[in-house]
Amino acid sequence: MTARLEIVAVPGVPEVAKGSSPGALIAAAAGRAGLAIADADVVVVSQKIVSKAEGRVRDLGDVEPGPNALAIAARLDKDPRLVELILAESRRVVRAERGVLIVETRGGWICANAGIDASNVPGDETVALLPENADASARQLRSDLEAATGSRPAMIIADSFGRPWRLGQTDVAIGCAGIGPIDDWRGRTDREGRPLAATSVAVADELAGAADLARDKGSGAPAVLIRGAERWTSAGDGPGAGALRRSEGEDLFR
Amino acid sequence: MTARLEIVAVPGVPEVAKGSSPGALIAAAAGRAGLAIADADVVVVSQKIVSKAEGRVRDLGDVEPGPNALAIAARLDKDPRLVELILAESRRVVRAERGVLIVETRGGWICANAGIDASNVPGDETVALLPENADASARQLRSDLEAATGSRPAMIIADSFGRPWRLGQTDVAIGCAGIGPIDDWRGRTDREGRPLAATSVAVADELAGAADLARDKGSGAPAVLIRGAERWTSAGDGPGAGALRRSEGEDLFR
Repeated sequence: MTARLEIVAVPGVPEVAKGSSPGALIAAAAGRAGLAIADADVVVVSQKIVSKAEGRVRDLGDVEPGPNALAIAARLDKDPRLVELILAESRRVVRAERGVLIVETRGGWICANAGIDASNVPGDETVALLPENADASARQLRSDLEAATGSRPAMIIADSFGRPWRLGQTDVAIGCAGIGPIDDWRGRTDREGRPLAATSVAVADELAGAADLARDKGSGAPAVLIRGAERWTSAGDGPGAGALRRSEGEDLFR
Repeated sequence: MTARLEIVAVPGVPEVAKGSSPGALIAAAAGRAGLAIADADVVVVSQKIVSKAEGRVRDLGDVEPGPNALAIAARLDKDPRLVELILAESRRVVRAERGVLIVETRGGWICANAGIDASNVPGDETVALLPENADASARQLRSDLEAATGSRPAMIIADSFGRPWRLGQTDVAIGCAGIGPIDDWRGRTDREGRPLAATSVAVADELAGAADLARDKGSGAPAVLIRGAERWTSAGDGPGAGALRRSEGEDLFR
């Protein structure tokens, strides 16, 4: 079995304000562009639009850095107010050296700066935090999109994360609904009947990265439609992107 | 600017023997399937077909494990002959615990088992090593494909690597030609004129992962065509996937 995938950015999604429904806005923009969204599709949405709709933005002017944030900020040459926000969103610091602050977020992701940044957020000192529970956000988005279109595509919320050992960022899934994030090949065999070495594929991360290729970061295009990935989609919402988190006991690098 | 990408597996690429030309075999299979390959396309090829063509396969029956391999194998519960091959392909061991052997390969990649595995390799005890220089392999593939088709698409050689912190593997680029592996956004701004947080995007890795979505691992389909990614392609071969390697001085996790 092989597949043909098609990946297309949804043009014309407007700036999202707190309390608005990204699902409804994406549905309307897709409609205006003549893009029909089907149950079998996957819609990949950037974290930023979800965070803005959920009010997960902060003005650095309102942040009072504590002594720990001040100390780390001085050592890493970062804005102490930003560091205060990062620490408040984190369970623990994984690395704080060479200007880089890598943490484990309250939600369980390991990433730089707890995923907090200022790009594509209006306001001079405004930053966006990650959604509090991006799997719940993805389920909500899916419902909202269904209410607006009658279709119930799979939904992935994506953010750009760096990686150890390799330069550059790739988009990965931090929330999803209606898609199995991991395609487990354990127990299956190749055409010679030998066990496969690639035992499990992080499909949701590969889909998030694929969607990023259709998005121009400068334009902030926040939604991308993927057709041809229906073999991983499901009517139920499934386990969410939480299934992608490697537990501490299985992890050699924290 | 947005893009529409299309990703399609090339059906019918036969098993590759040592000394055969994967470029010519892929060109022939694409022709039989009516898939025209253009200069603007990206062809993603699995590492395994390249390794087999280059004779980078070993029979475990021919391997005599040394004392270091025997000690590590006993501790990790692995085949000592496989561990001997892994060590021979490695500059150093990054982690050897909990049954996992992560190394830095001679080529500079950090991955489990030096990328050596047995899936989709004929023979009961035969394993495939990574190509010695996958960027050179990609350049050769590109030339061979041009000789066979008259077109000169970009070429990516992909393999499945695991990641710290996240479960599941994703396909990444270990060799490329005719494509800038990193899209550098540093100095560019969002639509508000603010610096972008995603400063550089590992495009070649996102393309490798996207191609994996069109490939069924059981069938071993070794070549995938991507259309719509021409903004990252180039007539010259470019820096290769080596540009994706994070140097030790920039890396916090080895």
